[in-house]
Amino acid sequence: MKASVFVGTSVDGFIARLDGGLDFLERGGSEPHGYEEFIAQVDTIVIGRKTFEFVLSFTPPWPYGTKRVVVLSSTHLNLSTLPGVPKDTVEQMSGPPSEIVARLAASGAQHLYVDGGVTVQRFLSAGLIQNLTITRVPVLIGEGIPLFGSLPTDLLLNHIATRHYPNGLVQSEYEIINPK
Amino acid sequence: MKASVFVGTSVDGFIARLDGGLDFLERGGSEPHGYEEFIAQVDTIVIGRKTFEFVLSFTPPWPYGTKRVVVLSSTHLNLSTLPGVPKDTVEQMSGPPSEIVARLAASGAQHLYVDGGVTVQRFLSAGLIQNLTITRVPVLIGEGIPLFGSLPTDLLLNHIATRHYPNGLVQSEYEIINPK
Repeated sequence: MKASVFVGTSVDGFIARLDGGLDFLERGGSEPHGYEEFIAQVDTIVIGRKTFEFVLSFTPPWPYGTKRVVVLSSTHLNLSTLPGVPKDTVEQMSGPPSEIVARLAASGAQHLYVDGGVTVQRFLSAGLIQNLTITRVPVLIGEGIPLFGSLPTDLLLNHIATRHYPNGLVQSEYEIINPK
Repeated sequence: MKASVFVGTSVDGFIARLDGGLDFLERGGSEPHGYEEFIAQVDTIVIGRKTFEFVLSFTPPWPYGTKRVVVLSSTHLNLSTLPGVPKDTVEQMSGPPSEIVARLAASGAQHLYVDGGVTVQRFLSAGLIQNLTITRVPVLIGEGIPLFGSLPTDLLLNHIATRHYPNGLVQSEYEIINPK
């Protein structure tokens, strides 16, 4: 099993403004930049509660089709009562990232898409992300919710590919060399 | 006159470790990545005191040839007594970035290379940088001295070019659209 992050940031590394706003990402326009190809390779989405609630604010349509969606939250979410949320593919989990990954691997997950600010930082810090694709939108916003946080140790990256798009998006894909 | 930043960072956006260490940049190896071509276009280096002292720790050789070097410090530096520092091309200035730029423009500077963590942040924040070249070294270090800081307003960027190198360096060049 592997776990991937696929995320857009400002050039100064923010995934959202402090209030959660994503307006600055629109500077990239709506040009396709590989999300469809990426999500097609994923069978399970692991998403933090806040980002899940943000996604819900745009639902319907439900964006994840029939893929399994695991919402991470330490407080109980009444998922079955949420309008527009498929009951049979969405579940809640809580616990340390290593436990989440072990449970998902045991239940047949092959490729996780890990999403959400806190969640990405926790999984990176735990050495549980193998693939990182960052799409940088050509703007500096000065403050916001950062993609990256503290780490127990350096994480070495292998550069896989970098693409750039006419609207100024620069997308770099890395393999993460997690320490044993 | 224009002012440029040309800087290396970790993928998580740090220009140095908290203690000033740059060891992680070595992951990029010594492959040329355009610094010589960049510095050849510059006539004046504007550098913060801390970064200047770091540069001095590798002097001799003096790295800036006969180019004018302006060290920014609000406390007096006894530059003439520093071994290896050319007396006729190095001077100290202090004051807000707008004053520094005005003084340098008035004295004939055409293209400034603005360097040093605090200095780059102050000049960016003041809307005084026109060209930004970031070379990202394939490593996450988790904490350190960040390239970017807070801004009074978003700064929109025009993507000029992105290059990547066999050792995994990814270099993006942007023009900064400073608000009027």
